[in-house]
Amino acid sequence: MQLFYTNSTENYFTLNPEESKHVTKVLRKKKGDRLNFTDGKGNLLMAEILISDIRKTTVEVIKKEKKIKQHKYYLHVAIAPTKNMDRFEWFLEKACELGIDEITPIICSHSERKIIKADRCNRILLSAMKQSLKFHKPKLNNTISIENLLRNDFQGNKYIAHCKEAEKIELKNQKTENRTLILIGPEGDFSDNEIAIAIEKKFKAISLGTSRLRTETAGIAAVHTINIKQ
Amino acid sequence: MQLFYTNSTENYFTLNPEESKHVTKVLRKKKGDRLNFTDGKGNLLMAEILISDIRKTTVEVIKKEKKIKQHKYYLHVAIAPTKNMDRFEWFLEKACELGIDEITPIICSHSERKIIKADRCNRILLSAMKQSLKFHKPKLNNTISIENLLRNDFQGNKYIAHCKEAEKIELKNQKTENRTLILIGPEGDFSDNEIAIAIEKKFKAISLGTSRLRTETAGIAAVHTINIKQ
Repeated sequence: MQLFYTNSTENYFTLNPEESKHVTKVLRKKKGDRLNFTDGKGNLLMAEILISDIRKTTVEVIKKEKKIKQHKYYLHVAIAPTKNMDRFEWFLEKACELGIDEITPIICSHSERKIIKADRCNRILLSAMKQSLKFHKPKLNNTISIENLLRNDFQGNKYIAHCKEAEKIELKNQKTENRTLILIGPEGDFSDNEIAIAIEKKFKAISLGTSRLRTETAGIAAVHTINIKQ
Repeated sequence: MQLFYTNSTENYFTLNPEESKHVTKVLRKKKGDRLNFTDGKGNLLMAEILISDIRKTTVEVIKKEKKIKQHKYYLHVAIAPTKNMDRFEWFLEKACELGIDEITPIICSHSERKIIKADRCNRILLSAMKQSLKFHKPKLNNTISIENLLRNDFQGNKYIAHCKEAEKIELKNQKTENRTLILIGPEGDFSDNEIAIAIEKKFKAISLGTSRLRTETAGIAAVHTINIKQ
């Protein structure tokens, strides 16, 4: 199955020029052929091509089906974007493939990168969602400072993955049926103060294993650990 | 701790120009300062700078310590290099960070990429080893066809991760204390014939979860699954 994305809520809609070209020239689809779309909100839309056009292919939705999420948990990862943006983008793609619900880019006192291109990140998430045949696009929240994030209340399990010597529990041994929020720090780790605030806010310090992991690898290790525990 | 690599077995050796420049100009190390090296074979070599030179820094080994491997298992992944080489290189870096012992690039009938640059791949493994403070470099075997690989005998657990409908066991539920070999196919999956030969050779078909994963993501998911089971 090949999956396309649409944000249209209409019964008839037109693909953008890039998709129109792909559908007509690469996939060689013609009038009457069917395409599968998702809205990233859990729906599979089966549509029929009404007008096959290299720039403006138009389709009609003929069936709409609600799909259940592939994973059973609800995982929110708040992670510091890496200095090298490729690494953060790789995290987005792999986290979406493995199964994540919400991502918040956080700015910490040791962060070297303080801005990200949200449009580009959302395109990566959309692409990973389609490629891995998922119907739910992870929510990418606005970038926020760790202090502001920690001012909010969160329901569920709350963990912080830091590299400092401290009493830690192993994420793989935790119950994760509920909502889970995991904080992953920047290349220079969280500051002592940031860790202290998180602990005060009832976040538990976790270990992700015996290796020293890069930020984006720690993020993926956290997602996969939750994923295989379901 | 910062870790350097050397393949020297001498008590005195000279760093290459790139490392010499890094040590003298970036780290501002001087005569008498100490540096930590690994040979990638499990040894930590503590060395003292005898000659601090921007192109030819020379050190003397003053202590050698055998380090035990950070992970307790022995994992060999035979994986088809991806069409986009970046993706395969990501796999190498992340697999090394998480913990792997041996990697064999395999060529399958659906492989789009049939050659890799072994030198470049080994440099990526060395760099990931140093960065994650490991003392054992994963072994990168020569690229080999899946047919030839399957002609060999392997001791330990043998698994094949393919995407076709079949009876599969979940990797996360398997015992992995012994040596483990996992086969990961190319973007177009293993062929029916390749799967049949593997099954005949007593490989068990495994599932890595509910998501459709890209080749390199499947590789990382397999490594991390073994890693968190130890």
